[in-house]
Amino acid sequence: MHVEVLCTGNELLDGSVVDTNASYFMERSFLRGAPVARKETLPDDLPVLVEAFRKLGERADFVLVSGGLGPTADDITLDAAAQAAGVPLEIDQAILQKLKERFARRNIAFSENNARQARVPRGGQAVPNPFGSAPMIVLTVGKARCHLLPGVPREFRGLCDQEVIPRLEQALAGEPNRVYRIGRVLRCVGIAESHLDALVKDLPARHPHVSFGFRTHAPENHLKLLAEGASQDEARARLEAVEREARALLGTKVFGIDQEELPQAVFAALKKAGATVAFAESVTGGMCASLLASVPGASEVLVSSAVVYQERAKTQLLGVDAELVAREGAVSAKVTRELAEAARAHSGARFGVAITGWAGPSGGTPADPVGTVYVCLTDGNGVLEEKTRFGFDRERVRSFAAYLALDLLRRHARGIIP
Amino acid sequence: MHVEVLCTGNELLDGSVVDTNASYFMERSFLRGAPVARKETLPDDLPVLVEAFRKLGERADFVLVSGGLGPTADDITLDAAAQAAGVPLEIDQAILQKLKERFARRNIAFSENNARQARVPRGGQAVPNPFGSAPMIVLTVGKARCHLLPGVPREFRGLCDQEVIPRLEQALAGEPNRVYRIGRVLRCVGIAESHLDALVKDLPARHPHVSFGFRTHAPENHLKLLAEGASQDEARARLEAVEREARALLGTKVFGIDQEELPQAVFAALKKAGATVAFAESVTGGMCASLLASVPGASEVLVSSAVVYQERAKTQLLGVDAELVAREGAVSAKVTRELAEAARAHSGARFGVAITGWAGPSGGTPADPVGTVYVCLTDGNGVLEEKTRFGFDRERVRSFAAYLALDLLRRHARGIIP
Repeated sequence: MHVEVLCTGNELLDGSVVDTNASYFMERSFLRGAPVARKETLPDDLPVLVEAFRKLGERADFVLVSGGLGPTADDITLDAAAQAAGVPLEIDQAILQKLKERFARRNIAFSENNARQARVPRGGQAVPNPFGSAPMIVLTVGKARCHLLPGVPREFRGLCDQEVIPRLEQALAGEPNRVYRIGRVLRCVGIAESHLDALVKDLPARHPHVSFGFRTHAPENHLKLLAEGASQDEARARLEAVEREARALLGTKVFGIDQEELPQAVFAALKKAGATVAFAESVTGGMCASLLASVPGASEVLVSSAVVYQERAKTQLLGVDAELVAREGAVSAKVTRELAEAARAHSGARFGVAITGWAGPSGGTPADPVGTVYVCLTDGNGVLEEKTRFGFDRERVRSFAAYLALDLLRRHARGIIP
Repeated sequence: MHVEVLCTGNELLDGSVVDTNASYFMERSFLRGAPVARKETLPDDLPVLVEAFRKLGERADFVLVSGGLGPTADDITLDAAAQAAGVPLEIDQAILQKLKERFARRNIAFSENNARQARVPRGGQAVPNPFGSAPMIVLTVGKARCHLLPGVPREFRGLCDQEVIPRLEQALAGEPNRVYRIGRVLRCVGIAESHLDALVKDLPARHPHVSFGFRTHAPENHLKLLAEGASQDEARARLEAVEREARALLGTKVFGIDQEELPQAVFAALKKAGATVAFAESVTGGMCASLLASVPGASEVLVSSAVVYQERAKTQLLGVDAELVAREGAVSAKVTRELAEAARAHSGARFGVAITGWAGPSGGTPADPVGTVYVCLTDGNGVLEEKTRFGFDRERVRSFAAYLALDLLRRHARGIIP
């Protein structure tokens, strides 16, 4: 089956908007064994669009169209599709009535223009849009079954999932030699891409129906597994087999799968252990606490963070000995440990975590140049300390430092063996 | 002049990569009066690409091609362009030598495949790529001048700016009725899009050569001005005139232009005033401090932040009366003011800023439901207090609260008139 995508709108060609609708559909179509053969992006230009629909009618079987269904005069996707199909546009009274009710509910005046969204090409089908005002239109042009969706991403995605994909599934049902794909992302932190690659290097030979992808999503690294099979079950069994082996090789480096974020994993680990944490943050400037606080329910596990950014704040907020800071330096193993102990002692939290470092661009010492980060985790029984140096710019040093600290906490949420 | 873009690569059609290269070029081309007429995205399929280049040779004058110049067998953009032009590919010995030197410098073995990147179509021009190994290729196919760039975004953008845009300028030099455009984004915070729209509603009639766009970039709202003229100077003069008027209407709502971020503006305002700040953050969980700390040199103005997330932390870190917290509630005007005063007193900073609130999804009270945020700014002489309610989800309540507090600080960095 030949699948194509057409995106319309001047805003997609003047650089002001990056289209993300198409890839949303393309990923889903690809996983179902129907990779998109071509994507065209065209302006709001009637003759150009009519010609494009004619060509699609010759080439394609299944077409997804995004954009140009709004109420204004430059929304001409419907006009172009109807002209290419050789049918007139007609006002659908039921849709018009619903549109008017929708506007009345929202206390918005209904103008002449808005009635444009009630137009349906003769022989076409209007599918209600629960996410917005313009219905989705299904129309056959030549041999192509065209699905016209609004370009607003929230509406596009909702209709794509609820209406387009089920229709694609139906169209694919009879296809011979159909390929099914299932993907899984194993999200890792604290491991370089080359190291990740080396750890799983023997898997591809043993899993010929799985493709392996590595993606850096700093500070994370992702292993992307994509299994294919002649049925959903076969693809799923292959995915499960390779995922099991990959997890055995990667161990605790994997903090989550697919859409899971590190803060969620830290929250879950602390909650499971019934533990709480207090931070003392210098170089990260509050990023650790803010990341953890992004998780709903975070107040169960996060007591506080003392963001001791200037040197004097280390003494003011946490009572760390000013002489020790002066002697050892604010970025040092001893001060970091003192901060972690103080964060824990002041808060009564089970864990204290401290992070100091030089984010740059200025700062640093000959021994500890810009990029150097100290992390300390304590539970009152044991202490874990790490020192590392990141060769990145300021924002990346800060986010890598925050992820290093959070991941240390995740891996030892049940306690530190002294 | 008819300009088109062609993007190649299976990864652009299976949903795994969203193309951002094209819009980078398209914005620049549009501003120079040459909007892109069409963008095609095609797979690594030789016959399909050869046919696409042939069509481009009939339709287009200036073509930008992204992707497919790598060393592997599926990198076939060059092959397709050469076939469409009817010329052979030849190894360029000078490029080959440079490639080998590049690999030797990096201690990477040079394989047979790598020599593919030294191929140049006969009659084409190889332009050195200072950002990577594959040179940019310029080749005339039919009537179209085609510019073939690697798809790696860093390489693409570097070559686009250094090599493609100057060639586009040259090609446009002789164009009659050329239109020049200059854009400016006025970034605002603390103002709804509809309010922003209403404030500047009289400008379009007085500035017929300027287009006005409104963009929500939560928590910010942007007014986008795009002026056009028959020369750069005319476009610039029109932009300056409308920008002056827009700024007079928007006043301190505008915190920055184009790429400027709020934290930079806050940093600059504090630095100019010779002032420092200490935060006490509850609902924002460290986000205020982390945003300010993202600016290089932040330690000049940011003393500390006490992230007092659990109720007890307000007493532990800042000594706020536990009875007051129990009586008034942790989210209340009185506790917020106490926190701001304590943050200032503990740190010796010129300003104390406190933020409390209910981020949700749980929490809130009948009087202060989820979404309620209190902010207090004090400089020891005066106090500014705000209470608002955001009708958003957790993450947006948090970021809107942080922006509200930071913007208050920006607007009063010279002090509060008591």
